[in-house]
Formats: sequence, C-alpha cells, structure tokens
Amino acid sequence: MDLDAVNSMSYEQFLDIFGNIIEKCPIITAAVWSRRPFSSFGEVEDGVHEFIESLPISVEFLEENSHKICTKKQGKEGILRCHPDLAGRELTSGTLTMESQEEQRGAGLTSLTSQERERLTLLNTQYKEKFGFPFVICAKMADKDKIMRELSARLQNDPSVELLIGIDEVKKICHLRIQDILRKGSLLPTKL
Amino acid sequence: MDLDAVNSMSYEQFLDIFGNIIEKCPIITAAVWSRRPFSSFGEVEDGVHEFIESLPISVEFLEENSHKICTKKQGKEGILRCHPDLAGRELTSGTLTMESQEEQRGAGLTSLTSQERERLTLLNTQYKEKFGFPFVICAKMADKDKIMRELSARLQNDPSVELLIGIDEVKKICHLRIQDILRKGSLLPTKL
Repeated sequence: MDLDAVNSMSYEQFLDIFGNIIEKCPIITAAVWSRRPFSSFGEVEDGVHEFIESLPISVEFLEENSHKICTKKQGKEGILRCHPDLAGRELTSGTLTMESQEEQRGAGLTSLTSQERERLTLLNTQYKEKFGFPFVICAKMADKDKIMRELSARLQNDPSVELLIGIDEVKKICHLRIQDILRKGSLLPTKL
Repeated sequence: MDLDAVNSMSYEQFLDIFGNIIEKCPIITAAVWSRRPFSSFGEVEDGVHEFIESLPISVEFLEENSHKICTKKQGKEGILRCHPDLAGRELTSGTLTMESQEEQRGAGLTSLTSQERERLTLLNTQYKEKFGFPFVICAKMADKDKIMRELSARLQNDPSVELLIGIDEVKKICHLRIQDILRKGSLLPTKL
C-alpha cells in the first residue's frame, strides 16, 4: 500500500485498515481521516497524537478532589480503559482484538507458568485498584520478565505520572501497529 | 439496576454494560466512569455530552480550507464515522452492533422492498460523498418513510450544519440506549 492508495480511501476503507491502531478507539482513526491527503505516513500518526493530546486529563488524577471539580476533565484515561489486561480475561476467553492477541503472544504471555499468571493477575489487580485503569505497556518492545518488572515498578508511581506513561505506551503501540499495516502492504513508510 | 449498583461498578463492569451507548465509542463511556459517583443516571448522559462537546470540529467542515488549517481541528466527525449506514453493508452482513440491529429493525429497515433499498443506498452514497460521514438519525424515533424524507432533506444542508445535526441525533440515540439499559435492569431512572 502506498500513500496515494491511502489518500484515496473512503473513511470506511481507512477504518477497515487503520481502525484499531489505538485499541478499541476507531473514533480516533475516523477523525484522523479528516487530515487527508497525508503527505507522509507519519502524518497519520501525528493526527492520532493530536487527537489524544486534545483530550483533557481528569482532575481526579491530579488531586484528591470532589466529584464536581473533575466532571469537565474526563478524557485521556478513557483510552487506557479501552485496553485489555495483559494475560487477562480477554486472553483467556479469546476475545482480544487480533492486534492485542498477537502482541501478547509475542511477549510470551500466552505461555506463562501458573505461578507467573497468578503473579501477573495479582499485580494487574493492584494496579487497577490504585489507578482506575489497566497497566498498558508496548508488549512488542518487551518480554514477560520486563513486563513483570515494569508493572511492579510503575505500581509505585503517582497516578498523574502513571496516566502519562500509559498514554506514551499507547503511542508506541500505535506506531508499531501502523508500521505492521504498512509492512503487510509490502511497503515501508519513509517517515515512520 | 439502581444508582448504587452503577456507582459501585469497576470501569470494566461499567464498560460491559454502557460501553456502546455511543456507537463503537467505548472510549467515551470509559472516560465518563471518572465522574462517579453519579448522583443521577442523567449524569452519565451529561458526561457523554461533555466529552462530545470537548472534541473540536474539523475546519474542513467550516470552510473550503487548506490541509494545514484543519489538522488541529479533527474530532466530532469521528463519532459519526463510527456509525453504520442505515440498511447498509453491516445490516446485510450481520455485523451490526446489537443495539444498531435492534434500532434498524424497529424502524422497518430490515423489511425494505428492493426499490426502497436501492433508493436508500443511493441517498446514503450521495450523503457520504457530500459530507464525508454517514447519515445518522435516531431510528427509534422514526420509521422508514420518515428516514427517507429526512435523508433527502438533510442532503441539502450545509456540511457545518449537518455535522451538528448528526451529533444531536447521536445524543438522542445515546439517551434511548441508556433508558433501555436501565429498563432491562427493571428500574426507570428519575432524571432521564
């Protein structure tokens, strides 16, 4: 697939191909289509980043606040909550998106010992209880040992810091998913 | 389901139940969870509206502009592009969400004559070519004749006006989907 092909796509064709570059957030891909024509594949990614940056950060994560203060500040954390747990219920039930399934398998999360799975489940639960969103990491850039170490370490972070780290991981996942789409189209982008 | 039950839900439970109140946009439901505790079911809807209003409108729809001007203005139109065509490919292929399937069936779109289907397909195509997003209408508040009339009429609108009309329809659909969820929970909300 080359740039002209992408620029000539209807929003429906664009969504069929790029709809899950941000896990379960086709709204972002759908909005980015407005930017066409793209002068590089990097511009697809730029559009995703701008959409994400435009979302507010819940004040809930910035201070111990009242319900009222945070009501107009919901946003970025919603992206993280659309992500599955690593080695969680969706992996077990086979309901992961194709992309997540491949990423978790590649990181060795489909072949955990029962001890490793128990440990990861415990850490995931502690993480979600503390932060109110799941632990998100670019699994393609890690293996199960690194994931365990990172999860343990990030559990100690301040919620406002951890939200931003999670969003950075989402951007890394997006970058690799776009590259994967373009590779399958047997063309590597010039600017990615 | 009562308010206390909803307020005690994890974000995963909340997404399982309310995840599609905006078609294929679980990110919105996921962000709204940050507002809990909700003092009424209407507050769930308020949160959805605030999230939608926080999204920019593409300048592409406000002026015949250059690529550059609109790059930071993508947003609301993405919500519309996550919606299926009425009596379109997803209805035919059986890939509609449960909610859309029920809404389109209720409006009589699953029992169109071949002549009606051809007419609707033609109008949907003209609409998408003009606006760059699909025709969205609250099908539960219409029947196939009203849908045909509205589609023909709205095709004449200015794109900037039609974007806002489409978003208003999305809010109506969301309102009825929330009511339906609460009804199935055998409790009608006090403030919806």
